[in-house]
Amino acid sequence: WEEPPEGPVLVLLDQTRLPGEEVELVCTDVPALVEAIRGLAVRGAPLLGIAGAYGVALAAVRGYDVDEAAESLAHARPTAVNLAYGVRRALAAYRAALAGSAGGDPERAASAALAEARSLHAEDKEASAAMARHGLQLLAELLPGGGYQILTHCNTGALVSGGEGTAFAVALAAHRQGQLRRLWVDETRPLLQGARLTAYEAARSGMAYTLLTDNAAGSLFAAGNVHAVIIGADRIAADGSVANKVGSYPLAVLARYHNVPFIVVAPTTTVDQGTADGSSIEIEQRPGHEVTESTGNPVAPLGTQAYNPAFDITPAALITAIVTENGVVSPVTPDALAALCPSRAPGHDQVMG
Amino acid sequence: WEEPPEGPVLVLLDQTRLPGEEVELVCTDVPALVEAIRGLAVRGAPLLGIAGAYGVALAAVRGYDVDEAAESLAHARPTAVNLAYGVRRALAAYRAALAGSAGGDPERAASAALAEARSLHAEDKEASAAMARHGLQLLAELLPGGGYQILTHCNTGALVSGGEGTAFAVALAAHRQGQLRRLWVDETRPLLQGARLTAYEAARSGMAYTLLTDNAAGSLFAAGNVHAVIIGADRIAADGSVANKVGSYPLAVLARYHNVPFIVVAPTTTVDQGTADGSSIEIEQRPGHEVTESTGNPVAPLGTQAYNPAFDITPAALITAIVTENGVVSPVTPDALAALCPSRAPGHDQVMG
Repeated sequence: WEEPPEGPVLVLLDQTRLPGEEVELVCTDVPALVEAIRGLAVRGAPLLGIAGAYGVALAAVRGYDVDEAAESLAHARPTAVNLAYGVRRALAAYRAALAGSAGGDPERAASAALAEARSLHAEDKEASAAMARHGLQLLAELLPGGGYQILTHCNTGALVSGGEGTAFAVALAAHRQGQLRRLWVDETRPLLQGARLTAYEAARSGMAYTLLTDNAAGSLFAAGNVHAVIIGADRIAADGSVANKVGSYPLAVLARYHNVPFIVVAPTTTVDQGTADGSSIEIEQRPGHEVTESTGNPVAPLGTQAYNPAFDITPAALITAIVTENGVVSPVTPDALAALCPSRAPGHDQVMG
Repeated sequence: WEEPPEGPVLVLLDQTRLPGEEVELVCTDVPALVEAIRGLAVRGAPLLGIAGAYGVALAAVRGYDVDEAAESLAHARPTAVNLAYGVRRALAAYRAALAGSAGGDPERAASAALAEARSLHAEDKEASAAMARHGLQLLAELLPGGGYQILTHCNTGALVSGGEGTAFAVALAAHRQGQLRRLWVDETRPLLQGARLTAYEAARSGMAYTLLTDNAAGSLFAAGNVHAVIIGADRIAADGSVANKVGSYPLAVLARYHNVPFIVVAPTTTVDQGTADGSSIEIEQRPGHEVTESTGNPVAPLGTQAYNPAFDITPAALITAIVTENGVVSPVTPDALAALCPSRAPGHDQVMG
């Protein structure tokens, strides 16, 4: 959030250009932000929530139709629950301020929306730190020998967070304690968030890391070189099923087969009590050209159809533990999960309700 | 094998250029062929055997040092057992003819090597047809409902064979019978043999096929949309362990978890009785840039190390059946496997022995 003379703007790091280029993307309105979200310039569960809240504030401060902005932001990507959550938070603050001020002062309401976005941003930073603490303690209990070799998938670090991230924050904390022997980084096809973003964050942190194709994880498990899998989440259903980047579920099956802990790290805002189970989670299907082309050039014959889901679902039974900012759920049961999630009255409204 | 006025040459389809371009690669000597094999212009277990045999013949006909040529060809790639087998067959024919002719007639010996390469080529074509027959029968037994949805990995069709291939030949036979509902084609990172080559062969055959990232296979299994996995093999140990393209083992674990048949299709020349078990198979480690770069451009931060094994090992316990030209082994036991493999006296010599 920056406020140049021409009016407030949202400044984002364009993640599609990393690691080659660090390019800032300046959004002056919500349609530009929605496009950045759909095109994955901005991505990652916690960051999407923050971006959604700032987007509502941007619409309010610039005097656009706030309800319309909230509606389009909340549905920019269907699976990510944090996005809708962030939008709802800012929208609720906006509406409450509007209702509470005599005659409905839009300027005051816009300030309230911005303040709420800033709160969410700050809370997310704190949540990252708390998840890292809880995750580190869990690793110490599960793997008393130390010297962890951890496998991760997709990208879950500072790029997706107001703080140091979710799963990556746990690996980073282990690294700072001298307990991380190696981070195995799945490249994460089709969009290579592991190769482009996690490797970038790992390199900057100075940790020992090795990149691999998603295919190569199997032989690492077979050789005993994966002590734990740690991933983030895009939505967690009430029964503990986790929607995360496609390729997470095969890792969960491999982890179970090799008796390796499979750990999900996510803030409680990722838990959607309104989604009963994994089968109720809508999975975003993305365009086939992400698979059939590489930097614009075809890699498959023209006309090839692709199956390209953005996420897959890992059932609770395959998850050793879910680490949140409020503590750890293990084993993963609906009641234990609900107990860690504060009830959030405004969060349970429909956006337009 | 072509014989232009300038002397005999080996003409190969450069598989690294597919599907964009159909480029012929002309090898006039063995070093060029070795380079083509290392660079994967020529690849796939059966084809490597054929290429190895023709390579020995090429050296012999052109009057190069045949032993040296055989040695360098046999070791061009360490995991593929067919390559060394093809080289040994042609070399044995060459030596036998040399020993049998008065004064050691090199021209006659060269003709014998070429004839042996042509025999191997023809045998491989017959083996393809036999594997397709046996595989089709196996599918009918395992999946009596028909309408197969088959998942395959890497490339195993006519491009790698004197005939129609191994695993792909089975899918093709099912397609011709009207029993193939869909072929799911794993893209097969890092070199995308699935996207580039299998999709190309599937498109040409007119079968219904869909490309997916290797990551997306998990959710297909979970949804019940994979009825069988059918893959080839680069080496099969005496205990039935299968070395195949990296990413095969995770599919075997997924198949077991979802109770889906996992079928390996390979000629008996892929079975190496000299390799006792999976742990004895040397796994080729390939350069990291195959993972860290895409068409020459870095996708990961500079200096990123990559773990890039070309193959992984699937233990016999995870394999429902091995289909060979001589019949089907199921369950996969060392004795049943040995019973299908003819003892091949020349094949068991060391190349330089």
